[in-house]
Amino acid sequence: MIKVYGDILSGNCYKIKLLLSFLNIEHLWIHIDILNDETHTHDFTLMNPNAKIPAIELEDGKFLWESNAILQYLALHSCYLPESEYEKALVLQWQFFEQYSHEPYIATARYINKYLGLPDERLDEYKAKQSGGHKALSVMEQRLSESPFLVGETPTIADITLYAYTHVAHEGGFDLTPYHHILRWFKDIESITGYIPMSTSSQ
Amino acid sequence: MIKVYGDILSGNCYKIKLLLSFLNIEHLWIHIDILNDETHTHDFTLMNPNAKIPAIELEDGKFLWESNAILQYLALHSCYLPESEYEKALVLQWQFFEQYSHEPYIATARYINKYLGLPDERLDEYKAKQSGGHKALSVMEQRLSESPFLVGETPTIADITLYAYTHVAHEGGFDLTPYHHILRWFKDIESITGYIPMSTSSQ
Repeated sequence: MIKVYGDILSGNCYKIKLLLSFLNIEHLWIHIDILNDETHTHDFTLMNPNAKIPAIELEDGKFLWESNAILQYLALHSCYLPESEYEKALVLQWQFFEQYSHEPYIATARYINKYLGLPDERLDEYKAKQSGGHKALSVMEQRLSESPFLVGETPTIADITLYAYTHVAHEGGFDLTPYHHILRWFKDIESITGYIPMSTSSQ
Repeated sequence: MIKVYGDILSGNCYKIKLLLSFLNIEHLWIHIDILNDETHTHDFTLMNPNAKIPAIELEDGKFLWESNAILQYLALHSCYLPESEYEKALVLQWQFFEQYSHEPYIATARYINKYLGLPDERLDEYKAKQSGGHKALSVMEQRLSESPFLVGETPTIADITLYAYTHVAHEGGFDLTPYHHILRWFKDIESITGYIPMSTSSQ
């Protein structure tokens, strides 16, 4: 059975949990407490020298890390990866967009606000994250005005990747009210069989 | 013929140029001047709404952006993508590592130093990038002490992805002298037939 090392409160880990639930894949979830520095233990860094969650251990004992690479591996031969080579590349395009142009703004602003309680010494950084976050949301909004899902007519792991932190972006101070197409897309993802919410999923 | 929109001085664009050269793929390179805001024109944002280079236009007129997604597409059916599904996922793992844990430190420090001339108002940010950059270099050094290339015995696009900004990391203030395995790996990549250096490649 696949082992997932993560914390369900992390959007990057929730991505994996959500795909596993959509695909109904049995797995063992091993909770890693970031605040208790459990990603820096000797055993953890043997698995992921970059000391980050999530990481997975396959049945043959091999490891894989980086949330979006894990999604790619777990989605192989499923309906969450398109068949055409060009559309597969588009899935990757949106996944790299998420890690470089979306997550560092939206997830970081949320972390500073929700988990650190918006301390004075990080207020400037929090404010600076807002424009980059809205830029990423605008790029998504435009795409979702043209297409039901990010790559085409059906959901792919590109949608799971970007749903994770976008649907909790308000916790980072982002008002999503003007983003009508993103709000419509949330509902479409949340109506997929097997959907589980982020907050109530246990470890 | 594939069209590539980019600036060869950008490491993210150089990745594409280097793979095209290794694979001896004919292409048309269209220079985009970032400093002249050419990624924000109407025509450019129709191609890439995220207003970043590189972007490519395929022979059928379709577009693709995000450097690492472009590498994945161009490397299909070549020796720069491994055959096994697990190794393909490892290539992605290193590509996502590059975009999240490496490029924002090493490429940004280089940009502040080399292109902006290390202005006083960005000195703190420049200094703050150093520890994250060295952390990323250490993760690479460890992997390259175990394996000739990042994924295995032969070079893949994971190596091209990480070579781009690592081999000019000294321009961002990173002393590479202690990273013996990374220095050995540079030589191995630079000895591949078709290798072109970053600085002397024209637009």
